[in-house]
Amino acid sequence: MKSVNVGLAGLGTVGSGTFNILTRNATEIERRVGRSIHISQIGARRDNPACDTSQHQVTRDIFDVAKNPDVDILVELIGGTSVAKELVLSAIENGKHVVTANKALIAEHGNEIFSAAASKGVNVLYEAAVAGGIPIIKALREGLAANRIEWIAGIINGTGNFILTEMQEKGREFSDVLSEAQDLGYAEADPTFDVEGIDAAHKLTIIASIAFGIPLQFDAVFTEGISKITPADIEYADQLGYRIKHLGLTRRSAGGIELRVHPTLIPKNRLIANVNGVMNAVLVKGDAVGPTLYYGAGAGDEATGSAVVADIVDLARILGCAQDHNVPALGFVKTENTPILSVDLIYTCYYLRIEVQERPGVLAEITKILSEQNISIEAVLQKEVHQEGRLIPIIILTHRVLEKDMNDAISKIQALDEVEQEITRIRLEHLDAG
Amino acid sequence: MKSVNVGLAGLGTVGSGTFNILTRNATEIERRVGRSIHISQIGARRDNPACDTSQHQVTRDIFDVAKNPDVDILVELIGGTSVAKELVLSAIENGKHVVTANKALIAEHGNEIFSAAASKGVNVLYEAAVAGGIPIIKALREGLAANRIEWIAGIINGTGNFILTEMQEKGREFSDVLSEAQDLGYAEADPTFDVEGIDAAHKLTIIASIAFGIPLQFDAVFTEGISKITPADIEYADQLGYRIKHLGLTRRSAGGIELRVHPTLIPKNRLIANVNGVMNAVLVKGDAVGPTLYYGAGAGDEATGSAVVADIVDLARILGCAQDHNVPALGFVKTENTPILSVDLIYTCYYLRIEVQERPGVLAEITKILSEQNISIEAVLQKEVHQEGRLIPIIILTHRVLEKDMNDAISKIQALDEVEQEITRIRLEHLDAG
Repeated sequence: MKSVNVGLAGLGTVGSGTFNILTRNATEIERRVGRSIHISQIGARRDNPACDTSQHQVTRDIFDVAKNPDVDILVELIGGTSVAKELVLSAIENGKHVVTANKALIAEHGNEIFSAAASKGVNVLYEAAVAGGIPIIKALREGLAANRIEWIAGIINGTGNFILTEMQEKGREFSDVLSEAQDLGYAEADPTFDVEGIDAAHKLTIIASIAFGIPLQFDAVFTEGISKITPADIEYADQLGYRIKHLGLTRRSAGGIELRVHPTLIPKNRLIANVNGVMNAVLVKGDAVGPTLYYGAGAGDEATGSAVVADIVDLARILGCAQDHNVPALGFVKTENTPILSVDLIYTCYYLRIEVQERPGVLAEITKILSEQNISIEAVLQKEVHQEGRLIPIIILTHRVLEKDMNDAISKIQALDEVEQEITRIRLEHLDAG
Repeated sequence: MKSVNVGLAGLGTVGSGTFNILTRNATEIERRVGRSIHISQIGARRDNPACDTSQHQVTRDIFDVAKNPDVDILVELIGGTSVAKELVLSAIENGKHVVTANKALIAEHGNEIFSAAASKGVNVLYEAAVAGGIPIIKALREGLAANRIEWIAGIINGTGNFILTEMQEKGREFSDVLSEAQDLGYAEADPTFDVEGIDAAHKLTIIASIAFGIPLQFDAVFTEGISKITPADIEYADQLGYRIKHLGLTRRSAGGIELRVHPTLIPKNRLIANVNGVMNAVLVKGDAVGPTLYYGAGAGDEATGSAVVADIVDLARILGCAQDHNVPALGFVKTENTPILSVDLIYTCYYLRIEVQERPGVLAEITKILSEQNISIEAVLQKEVHQEGRLIPIIILTHRVLEKDMNDAISKIQALDEVEQEITRIRLEHLDAG
């Protein structure tokens, strides 16, 4: 069989990983596919010393690759959303299949891109866009296709997980670990994308769409970052039997689909609570299979490249054999407009840290407010402080409560004279059976 | 599009799970596939009260299903290897695709079955044969297709993991937990298949073939069960920082492929060391992606049914669109005859428990023998015993050693006058980076 011709647009971290895998494992991959995969053109603004491209045609204009008649599959690894979108649409217009690792592009412009691809009869695959090398897109679109998915909880940002793990294991401050992560190259100079949850929200958008068969709706994700988490919160959570992880959560509820990214207390003995460092993991609850978990590297040149090449292999296995790739872009032939639930309407448990002036009756006032909002308490920790004038932390874990009721309760507690600092609130999920 | 017609052969645990998923989730599955999946015939010796088959055609002769011209896909869920093989070959002969959950059938007769299927241009899918509902076959054949797989370690027998977990958590004896597992329905009346590792060996055979692209070679698996593990071993391992798990292990070594099932000490902080109860998990090390782990229920009606239905969905997505399923039976278009390494030639670390008469110099004699076989020691625990005449346990952890050298050392130590009981030996793997 004729070889499959790939055009590589972008030769940064993931581009070089993809190039090196295709080169080093060419024989093994050909054994799997039954035909060779040939890199027929590379589009990159500059060379990357990590790749020996001397045997390849290199262009400085990536749009050459989208127009190259020899190219069967355009691999978009330039990142960003404006040029990348133009490039992908140009490749589709030219009848090429597309493989991309670009989560922002799919989360923000996927509906338009998939629709363009469908009308040209080509495919856009994006395994590398979520959780790096973990084949989670394939698991959801194919491996768990028997299931009505109930909920998904994922550690889908390695930088955030690295920071929380260091804070947990060494009692360090957020800002201190962030600097180290920047030095190690885990975090960008502007870390907002990672630590404020935007990157995770991109990935969660994609996960929710293929889990439930709904359109991509990045703007509907409720997003809260980890920058306000303190070593004290991590320590109190630990004493109560929990770890704090930054989770992307999506759930099918009675009123609609929950879509939220926020720090979350989870029971220590859950497997996902023990996923540490830069590693990612996605826990999926299906109605038939029960809980399943997928763990691996969420970033890195070859880990992400592994997912890019898996998509190339998927396409190479069908190119010229069938008209269409057999799996619909979002795993469902038609999406449904199930509403996204406003975060006010979700039910979840809560961890509260309330720093108060030590006066008799403060705890009683707080619990009275909670009880008036129908919020029942699971546990209370009141820490002794042996220093004159210092605030005393009261830690409260609640049972499940409507977010709106919790907001009201927090406003009322915040208004008490004894409460001087802003109350810390972290959601808590039991993630039962997983 | 015309509906896809499925013939269900077998209506036991997995058969009823499959039936109930296809019935309950019919709408969701049709949304995923773009056509409906219809159960056109059921072959079962008797009805199953868990399924309402009143709307379906039921035959007592399962071979009717293999011959039924209306059936596109035969789903073999009768178990066993003789009638099941005949049934599957008959379906293939009649031009039907086959989905099976039968690990013994694939591990022992897969080469013949796949060859028959290839010559008739039909497919045999078997996701449910390994690790129940976890989509590990798909992950290896497709999701990780970019990688040269280095090694795989799996907890792939739920019964064995349940027993070891109970022993670990409650200090119970093997035989005591086994009885409970039998009462709970986790273990068969004859538990040999599970506790002696034969079931795990079937699954490991399949995993190794699709990881490395080698023929199925069940007879080549080295298999050791868990029946000799004592609560004391679990306790000593714990003190040294390890858990004992029953693992299926396969690795690409210089001399060939390792294929082995045996109890194994693994560091406590590895994620897979924390997979408990009846749950399964498979840890895969690829050269590009690094370590990835897949966790979920390894057995049960709907967990296994989830994998069966995923295979049906895979076939339904291509039926009538293309000639062939695009993924080769073992994930590689051609297998290679890489030799299987004899267990004598593997390198691994060891845990030894040697019960000795308390006499000065015994430990020195033992360490001398080890050192003469070039075995270096990582840790020694010598337990005090305060009872006259009782044997004293000496626990030794070694560094990596050639199995043959360890066998020689054990023979020599066993021959010492002070060593009266049979020496306990358990292999130890660090499973680095996972």
